[in-house]
Amino acid sequence: SVKPINGKRGMTIRAEAINPEIRKSEEKVVDSVVVSELAKPLTAYCRCWRSGTFPLCDGSHVKHNKATGDNVGPLLLKKPKE
Amino acid sequence: SVKPINGKRGMTIRAEAINPEIRKSEEKVVDSVVVSELAKPLTAYCRCWRSGTFPLCDGSHVKHNKATGDNVGPLLLKKPKE
Ligand code: FES
Ligand code: FES
Repeated sequence: SVKPINGKRGMTIRAEAINPEIRKSEEKVVDSVVVSELAKPLTAYCRCWRSGTFPLCDGSHVKHNKATGDNVGPLLLKKPKE
Repeated sequence: SVKPINGKRGMTIRAEAINPEIRKSEEKVVDSVVVSELAKPLTAYCRCWRSGTFPLCDGSHVKHNKATGDNVGPLLLKKPKE
């Protein structure tokens, strides 16, 4: 569904869903990470809603950015070695 | 920019940017969290690109979901008390 809404500085922008496919049966897709359970020093979490391994990032943001001119990317969780 | 692309099951969907405003001067918006530095037992990180406190979630996903019929929400980082 597309509705015109008022953006900043008077721009009119469309209000559209940003998640076309992931877990659409859920009212709100919220994921939790218990940070003490992270296995690796670096884990990337998806913020583009295009990952085949959501909630993890699989690099699909690259294709999305290229196709649309967007500039989104993941959230990196870092667990430095002690 | 809007380009028709092929979705799953033959649906035609539009490829559009999902981030209208956040740090558009950056080629790719990537944020890092050093999990040992999390201050609170629960911290919510934005995945809707509508937060006024990005990369943190400020609850703006609620308005976005209501306006568009979307179902997005934050990533919760949990650091249980020891
Ligand atoms: S695949 Fe979505 S941010 Fe990387
Ligand atoms: S404000 Fe973006 S997910 Fe909550």
